[in-house]
Amino acid sequence: MREYYHSELDEVVNQLVTMSDSVQVAVRDATTALLDANLAAAEHVISGDVRIDAMHDQLETRCFTLLARQAPVAGELRIIVAAMQVIADLGRTGDLAAHIAETARRRYPEKAVPDVLVATFHRMSVVAEAMISKAGRTLAERDLEEAHTLPEDDEEMDNLRNEQFRMLASPNWKDSVEAAVDAALLGRYYERIADHAVAMGRRIIYIITGNSPEGEDWPTT
Amino acid sequence: MREYYHSELDEVVNQLVTMSDSVQVAVRDATTALLDANLAAAEHVISGDVRIDAMHDQLETRCFTLLARQAPVAGELRIIVAAMQVIADLGRTGDLAAHIAETARRRYPEKAVPDVLVATFHRMSVVAEAMISKAGRTLAERDLEEAHTLPEDDEEMDNLRNEQFRMLASPNWKDSVEAAVDAALLGRYYERIADHAVAMGRRIIYIITGNSPEGEDWPTT
Repeated sequence: MREYYHSELDEVVNQLVTMSDSVQVAVRDATTALLDANLAAAEHVISGDVRIDAMHDQLETRCFTLLARQAPVAGELRIIVAAMQVIADLGRTGDLAAHIAETARRRYPEKAVPDVLVATFHRMSVVAEAMISKAGRTLAERDLEEAHTLPEDDEEMDNLRNEQFRMLASPNWKDSVEAAVDAALLGRYYERIADHAVAMGRRIIYIITGNSPEGEDWPTT
Repeated sequence: MREYYHSELDEVVNQLVTMSDSVQVAVRDATTALLDANLAAAEHVISGDVRIDAMHDQLETRCFTLLARQAPVAGELRIIVAAMQVIADLGRTGDLAAHIAETARRRYPEKAVPDVLVATFHRMSVVAEAMISKAGRTLAERDLEEAHTLPEDDEEMDNLRNEQFRMLASPNWKDSVEAAVDAALLGRYYERIADHAVAMGRRIIYIITGNSPEGEDWPTT
């Protein structure tokens, strides 16, 4: 019975890795939608979020069943609770990808991002995707080395965002107020994706080692 | 032993109500900081967020101990898991109040909100506070009637936000791009506070009745 329990727990972890892959692809497609004014990509992300939400609900139920079916021992309990938090972070990241895609769709056929900000948004997207991928790989391969670099990535994201704020506040800003408003909110969505990746990293380190990394580099969400 | 368990669970619920009161006050003070350019209020909210985070950590640990100490039966288990989610929502709402206060502090001694948007932000704040209060009272008094009106409140919040977007995108916008960017982000913070209140309401209804309200009026977060 104990063995069955462990294989069920492993299965939850495998499904978390799959969910993480789907969310990473959603962020990538949302960025394509945004930077190329690609309506099909936008629609794909928006309709695909239902599938990510379904994975969320299904995995949450599965964890709950594991909690209820037999009293897990303390270590297992901590893993299940941490897994439930990772599920919430991934679900939320999927929502944020959908928000990015919705902005692209709303501004179509125009591009939502003015030329002057394309490079920073592109870099934000690369950083965000790499962070989700790191969190997912850490879980899949039980290799902690990469996860510990997540706070550095998050710092790069914060720097990119500050760079954008400087451009938006500059007297050289030539685009509309509406474009500035969209850019500020889009920057916020990418920043939150990075925050969720850091939170996931912290929880995954916990799942693997039984200890959470501490300190202000590792905020919860 | 069972009785002891229930009184522990009741104690968690009482502390959740206390945390909800603190978070509601933080949102109120943050709005004072914002609309009156009140630096003392801003500092108070920002430094007070540490206390809300400490309540979050303490309550989360307490729930975890309840889960681990003895195998809760299914009903109790569901209550504890829902309580942990409410704790996360309240912690996040406290962070959002701190973000609002940080914007007020950054723009001090100027007011961060242009005159034309003061009325909508004031109303957003009233709605947000009322929503947190409803969620808290529902939990304290086990009276569901009010909780079911949370989605309506959330709709008002969305309408206020759309009204702000119209003002920001209008050719009559006379304030700076920077002020528009701040306003868009501030609007987002209030909107998210409302989203968390709806999510809390849904979970509290679950804690009380054992059933979640369903449908698109009741998103998770």
